[in-house]
Amino acid sequence: MLRTDKEIPKDLGFVTFKPGPLDAYRSKARFDWKEMRIAIDGIPKIQYMNQIWKTLKLDPEFQHIDRELKVEEKRERTYRQIKRLLEYDVLSFESIVENPAIINWFVDAVGCYDWSLAAKIMLNRQVFGNTLMSLGSNQHIHFVEKSAKLEVIGCFALTELSHGTNTRAMRTTATYDSRSQEFILNTPDIEATKCWVGVLGKTATHACVYAQLYTEDGKCHGLHIFIVPVRDPNTLQALPGVLVGDMGKKLGQNGLDNGFMSFNNVRIPREYLLNRNGDVSADGKYLSPFKDPNKRFGASLGALSGGRVGITSMAVTNLKLALTVAVRYSAVRKQFGPNDKEELPVIEYQMQQWRLIPYIAACYALSSLSAFIGKAFNEFAVNLIMGNKSATQADMGKELHALSSATKPLASWTARDAIQECREACGGHGYLAVNRFGVLRDDNDPNCTYEGDNNVLLQQTSNAVLVMVKAVQTGEVVQTPLKTMNFLNDMGAIIKQKFTATTEQEMLDPATCLDAYKWLVVYLSKESAHKLMRESKKGEDSFTARNNSQVYYCRSLAIAFIEHVTLQVFYDFCNDPSLPSDISIVLKKLCALYGLWSLEKHMATLYQGGYFSGGEPAKLVQTTILSLCADLKQDAVALVDVFAPPDFILNSPIGMSDGEVYKNLYGALIQGPGALERPSWWREFLEKPKIGSRPLAKL
Amino acid sequence: MLRTDKEIPKDLGFVTFKPGPLDAYRSKARFDWKEMRIAIDGIPKIQYMNQIWKTLKLDPEFQHIDRELKVEEKRERTYRQIKRLLEYDVLSFESIVENPAIINWFVDAVGCYDWSLAAKIMLNRQVFGNTLMSLGSNQHIHFVEKSAKLEVIGCFALTELSHGTNTRAMRTTATYDSRSQEFILNTPDIEATKCWVGVLGKTATHACVYAQLYTEDGKCHGLHIFIVPVRDPNTLQALPGVLVGDMGKKLGQNGLDNGFMSFNNVRIPREYLLNRNGDVSADGKYLSPFKDPNKRFGASLGALSGGRVGITSMAVTNLKLALTVAVRYSAVRKQFGPNDKEELPVIEYQMQQWRLIPYIAACYALSSLSAFIGKAFNEFAVNLIMGNKSATQADMGKELHALSSATKPLASWTARDAIQECREACGGHGYLAVNRFGVLRDDNDPNCTYEGDNNVLLQQTSNAVLVMVKAVQTGEVVQTPLKTMNFLNDMGAIIKQKFTATTEQEMLDPATCLDAYKWLVVYLSKESAHKLMRESKKGEDSFTARNNSQVYYCRSLAIAFIEHVTLQVFYDFCNDPSLPSDISIVLKKLCALYGLWSLEKHMATLYQGGYFSGGEPAKLVQTTILSLCADLKQDAVALVDVFAPPDFILNSPIGMSDGEVYKNLYGALIQGPGALERPSWWREFLEKPKIGSRPLAKL
Repeated sequence: MLRTDKEIPKDLGFVTFKPGPLDAYRSKARFDWKEMRIAIDGIPKIQYMNQIWKTLKLDPEFQHIDRELKVEEKRERTYRQIKRLLEYDVLSFESIVENPAIINWFVDAVGCYDWSLAAKIMLNRQVFGNTLMSLGSNQHIHFVEKSAKLEVIGCFALTELSHGTNTRAMRTTATYDSRSQEFILNTPDIEATKCWVGVLGKTATHACVYAQLYTEDGKCHGLHIFIVPVRDPNTLQALPGVLVGDMGKKLGQNGLDNGFMSFNNVRIPREYLLNRNGDVSADGKYLSPFKDPNKRFGASLGALSGGRVGITSMAVTNLKLALTVAVRYSAVRKQFGPNDKEELPVIEYQMQQWRLIPYIAACYALSSLSAFIGKAFNEFAVNLIMGNKSATQADMGKELHALSSATKPLASWTARDAIQECREACGGHGYLAVNRFGVLRDDNDPNCTYEGDNNVLLQQTSNAVLVMVKAVQTGEVVQTPLKTMNFLNDMGAIIKQKFTATTEQEMLDPATCLDAYKWLVVYLSKESAHKLMRESKKGEDSFTARNNSQVYYCRSLAIAFIEHVTLQVFYDFCNDPSLPSDISIVLKKLCALYGLWSLEKHMATLYQGGYFSGGEPAKLVQTTILSLCADLKQDAVALVDVFAPPDFILNSPIGMSDGEVYKNLYGALIQGPGALERPSWWREFLEKPKIGSRPLAKL
Repeated sequence: MLRTDKEIPKDLGFVTFKPGPLDAYRSKARFDWKEMRIAIDGIPKIQYMNQIWKTLKLDPEFQHIDRELKVEEKRERTYRQIKRLLEYDVLSFESIVENPAIINWFVDAVGCYDWSLAAKIMLNRQVFGNTLMSLGSNQHIHFVEKSAKLEVIGCFALTELSHGTNTRAMRTTATYDSRSQEFILNTPDIEATKCWVGVLGKTATHACVYAQLYTEDGKCHGLHIFIVPVRDPNTLQALPGVLVGDMGKKLGQNGLDNGFMSFNNVRIPREYLLNRNGDVSADGKYLSPFKDPNKRFGASLGALSGGRVGITSMAVTNLKLALTVAVRYSAVRKQFGPNDKEELPVIEYQMQQWRLIPYIAACYALSSLSAFIGKAFNEFAVNLIMGNKSATQADMGKELHALSSATKPLASWTARDAIQECREACGGHGYLAVNRFGVLRDDNDPNCTYEGDNNVLLQQTSNAVLVMVKAVQTGEVVQTPLKTMNFLNDMGAIIKQKFTATTEQEMLDPATCLDAYKWLVVYLSKESAHKLMRESKKGEDSFTARNNSQVYYCRSLAIAFIEHVTLQVFYDFCNDPSLPSDISIVLKKLCALYGLWSLEKHMATLYQGGYFSGGEPAKLVQTTILSLCADLKQDAVALVDVFAPPDFILNSPIGMSDGEVYKNLYGALIQGPGALERPSWWREFLEKPKIGSRPLAKL
């Protein structure tokens, strides 16, 4: 149903779609895409993002270029764009203080255009800046101010060549010298070379360096963070003692310069230690507010949690972009038909629906999840900077740690799989660079790795759930600030339940899936706890017992847990009474589809544990998924219109909002640089090889 | 166990590994990798491939270059390399006639180095050449001879801008003109532009063009193939009436120039029609050896089957390359440990084993499958060119069509998932371009699409299985030349079986999985047949009924069927009595692991259909997978040494055979082009932006 736009405010910057091949599906939609967008994002976010997008479209510095850029050129272009965005001042300190969510809006808006650009800005502004603000003291604030004006550029140097995941094993040293009141930084060997440092490759002038702090008595006080000037801000040449270089080409995000760095007796003033959680006095005494060094370590890593929340959102944005292209193309591309004369748009095929529509549902569900955790994290971060040390703040920190350690894997893997499915669902044209799936795949890929390998992170989540389960088993009533684990209090009753639905009608109610997920989480918790116990009883140390209980146990638990959270958060959103009813109806269908489609992957476990029995439950899950896909087919184009950025930002001929896929693609082909010219090396063809004129190498 | 090399012939060109960090695992291996390689590939193939690899390593034209190449430069380089390979004459007509398998060896060997190079050679030599040989007549042979000498370059133009999958819907026309005895080619509109034509973008001089043949009476005789000269061989300029261009950058395989092309009254001689399956007389009468135009169409598409067999092998090669890098790196990279002093190589972790080792098993299994179908296809192809029209040849054609329509999806998807898992399992360093996962991912990706979209192809397989099932149900005894469907004769007994294993010992026997797969294929066949019947009874036409029976039914059937074939072929190979016993022992473990790991994905169906019941079967599958992974860990490095190409060809610092991952990677980093230099655009940094100096666009 296309409504009149009467009730939609005029100043939101929404685009008006040209009439064309997508009209057929747009007119079938049972809701208004603008209303949906408002319900999800709210007016201020829509205005902010649309304004950034429109600004980029009009600025020559941001025009797409068809000639191929070398890595060095990409970096230059990105740097110029960073400066331009500062000139537009779209992310001022004042605006952040007023509304911290603006950071997420900014990353979403700019990330849609180019992730490298968004990443570079965030690494300097947020990661470097926030590290200083939350772990440094007043003496460090001027660095934050300078970095916001690009007078200096800051980076965050933790990972070393041979250590990433095992953070504590970093081996860069910072030894205090009381005579000069300086720290002396050294890299013991090549394996301790700092690497993967974002914005360090070509641009950073200052680095937050994680190093083992040694006092003059030879005692190691563990990892601390030091501000180390690495390049001369007047020349961008490396400072003496610093070997700094660029890691070279990555699979994606090549506008971002990741760097490596080693230190040879590099001296920095004592005051360049970020000293909130540990300091050295002028005469060389180590001073710490924490008695337990483990606690200090935990506190200093706390600043890292925001990264995972941000990546969750980045992955959702990638999902949106890929689905927009694939769904629009599938609604236009015709292939085969019931007779020789008529061909059907490929989205009419059950297979194509099944490949794409569940990912639309996942996109809406994860988008809800991302908003939920983003909001919670922003509140937490403000409290952190304000120095809030309440028990609730600590509990919130723990819950956010457990959640974000699983939302990042869930979102990044879902986006990874969706992008690939979309690429394949668009056939050969999906493989053409100009249609953008390559960039999306390559740029989304590191979301699975940085800020913690997905599989390793999931252990944090399962550990947290198992702690709660143990508490419940010992009679405690558990309560977490975001309530994501509260249902565990009923685990005794939950584990006794069985699947009882017998009709598609019951399956369409997401509550059916929520029940199944609760059972699944409790079942996997109990199985995981048993497995850990069995391993310990075999005499394994706790490290080994834990490692041997990941596959099929703790890992599955973490995934089931976070899928339950996602489904619950999305379900709550769909049931918000302030939603217009046509919006709510379609959202509930998406919610049911996401639940069933996610649950389907756990069906073997549901059978194994006896929650499912007989052939019917599996069949019900499958038939309901297929009917939901068939039902949502008519809304599919409108559902991607909701989250699609304007064509200039989407930048994919087969995904354009006018649906003129072949005209747009053909236009792109014939305008390709040198597309119609003979090769510059055509004379190579005229010189024929002499067959057999060269001998093969001897074995 | 490292044996003395006494029994290994000296002239195979095997490399000798330098002592280093991989020794620990190499010395734990319970078989000799060279013996394994000989058992799998045989001495002639090893010698052939090693000689090509050694030749490339010594030739300046093939040296790796670290500077970035533009697409145009990649194409030039690839073309020069094609000429060089002709000078070495590694794929002469005589050698192919003597041993058709040499084509596969050649593609494997060169593909390891660069897929674009192998593809370009094959498109001109095999695809263009074989099309002419199998569908043309004597008058066309001279084109084949010229293309082998690069006097002309031929390509194969089927796909159009808006039609790929639905082959029959191509709309390019070729109308006969009896006055001039010519065909006149035309492209009716932009959607009928030929596209994705390999080697057409910059180089082809001649194209095999699929067009609808019209006689002067206005009658359309369906798709035929015409040889169309498209570029002047003396200038590489397009010929009059031909608009030919390059499709531009793809996600991968950019040394290969895919092109597009349209025709405006392009005239070619009558003799340029490939006329084996249909001809036009000089005075314009259509002549066909086939009465049924469908049969003619089928025959002319028969020549396409080889592509899928070739892609199966390409995907297996990609699996080998990705696993070599990931397994070697995982055997060296240490992270965490039971105490603060000791860190374990990551391959010691159950999670890492579970992520990688099943793919090693899949690689060996699919390698067997690829050899099996490759051998069968080569025999078939020779018979085809010889004009064999026996019933066995026809049956073989059908079986190869059904098999290759599923081996290609199985192999390409397995490689796709394995490459991604390997990339992630190598963490950040896996994301560095120099370590090669990006190229592997991008170059493997189109294997899922070209020569038929995987999901669409699988329908061919399920159709064929369902035809056999119907025959059995009507009392026939089915027999296929390669015996892959013969077990269906026992379907009545098979469907009554239940899973009976209760011990890990039974699970280690691949026969347990083979039984489960037989049940699964029969179950899914019956379910699919029922589903098709239900859809028809609902009144759906056969086209719709079939479309609505793919997801969860026919698609799953095709996958289960081909996994059963793979497991059976690999099982037969492992049980070859001529294998040395230590080789056979490890192969059987890989076979059991591949079977269980593949079967695991179908567990919900096994429960749903009642083959599994209770919690034990699933648990047995899972625990056996994990024990096999733990067991095979000590052989893992040797297992990849078997199929790893020499370091020069592998071209990945973290995957080198010396295992010096950090030295090699550090070397690559500091030698990166301009790695240690400040950016050429450093002055950009000195010019600071004026914050807020530009207004945002108005909404």
